Amino acid sequence: MLGRTYENQNCSAARALEVVGERWSLLILRDALFRGMARFTEFQRSLGIAPNVLSARLQSFLKAGVMELEPTKEGSEQPRYRLTEKGRDLAPVVVALTAWGDRWSAPGGPPVLFGHAGCDGQVSLALVCDRCGSYAEATDLQARPGPGAQRKA
Amino acid sequence: MLGRTYENQNCSAARALEVVGERWSLLILRDALFRGMARFTEFQRSLGIAPNVLSARLQSFLKAGVMELEPTKEGSEQPRYRLTEKGRDLAPVVVALTAWGDRWSAPGGPPVLFGHAGCDGQVSLALVCDRCGSYAEATDLQARPGPGAQRKA
Repeated sequence: MLGRTYENQNCSAARALEVVGERWSLLILRDALFRGMARFTEFQRSLGIAPNVLSARLQSFLKAGVMELEPTKEGSEQPRYRLTEKGRDLAPVVVALTAWGDRWSAPGGPPVLFGHAGCDGQVSLALVCDRCGSYAEATDLQARPGPGAQRKA
Repeated sequence: MLGRTYENQNCSAARALEVVGERWSLLILRDALFRGMARFTEFQRSLGIAPNVLSARLQSFLKAGVMELEPTKEGSEQPRYRLTEKGRDLAPVVVALTAWGDRWSAPGGPPVLFGHAGCDGQVSLALVCDRCGSYAEATDLQARPGPGAQRKA
């Protein structure tokens, strides 16, 4: 967690970065979301990061409610870190980062494609307008004040 | 930039994080994308970060081709940092972070809504299947090897 580093920012993107903005955080979530990983040693083998760093990230995810510990059976091995709904809801962030990397720094083509379970199609992110229903370009977006614009949380 | 920290990761999300994963990077991009900011002092006023940090981030964006310097007229003031297509293409990452923050840590409601220029609708991100055309849930996504799966870039 970035702590209160972004506290003067009344911005949902900044608040999201407080939870997932530290180095490695999003790659741990990627492994949990799309590679079915849940154990400390699985994350460590996948990422090759220092155990103290990994431990700190997992603790911060527990604290933020992004992950929870699965109840372990007596005598069973390592605890399993399971994504909560709040954690699974970060999938679009990972998908968006992946799409950008695929387009701008994947000379050999996308290493991973996101398939649609049970349909064989490929899933990608789109900006959809709730009024006209059309797909919008990023350049069509206008930031407008929302209901929380006046508050400092 | 995170340098080659993630170099053993053949993953487009990791490569994206090499460019935008440092603290403040995504908030600078947010200001450039959705608040029309382009000058050093604009970013600094908005974010309140140390000038040396901001300077390093802007330099890294220039180096990565995410921003470019606008040709300045003779005698004109501060240089303007303009997003390139590669930079504008990061909008969905900011939108995805914002959507998560709106849902999970915006007690007063979303501070900002993304409007659809010329239509008054609201734009949000959706996961769309290219085969069946339906909107997918994050839990419907399956990571499958893509054409770049065998390469280490």
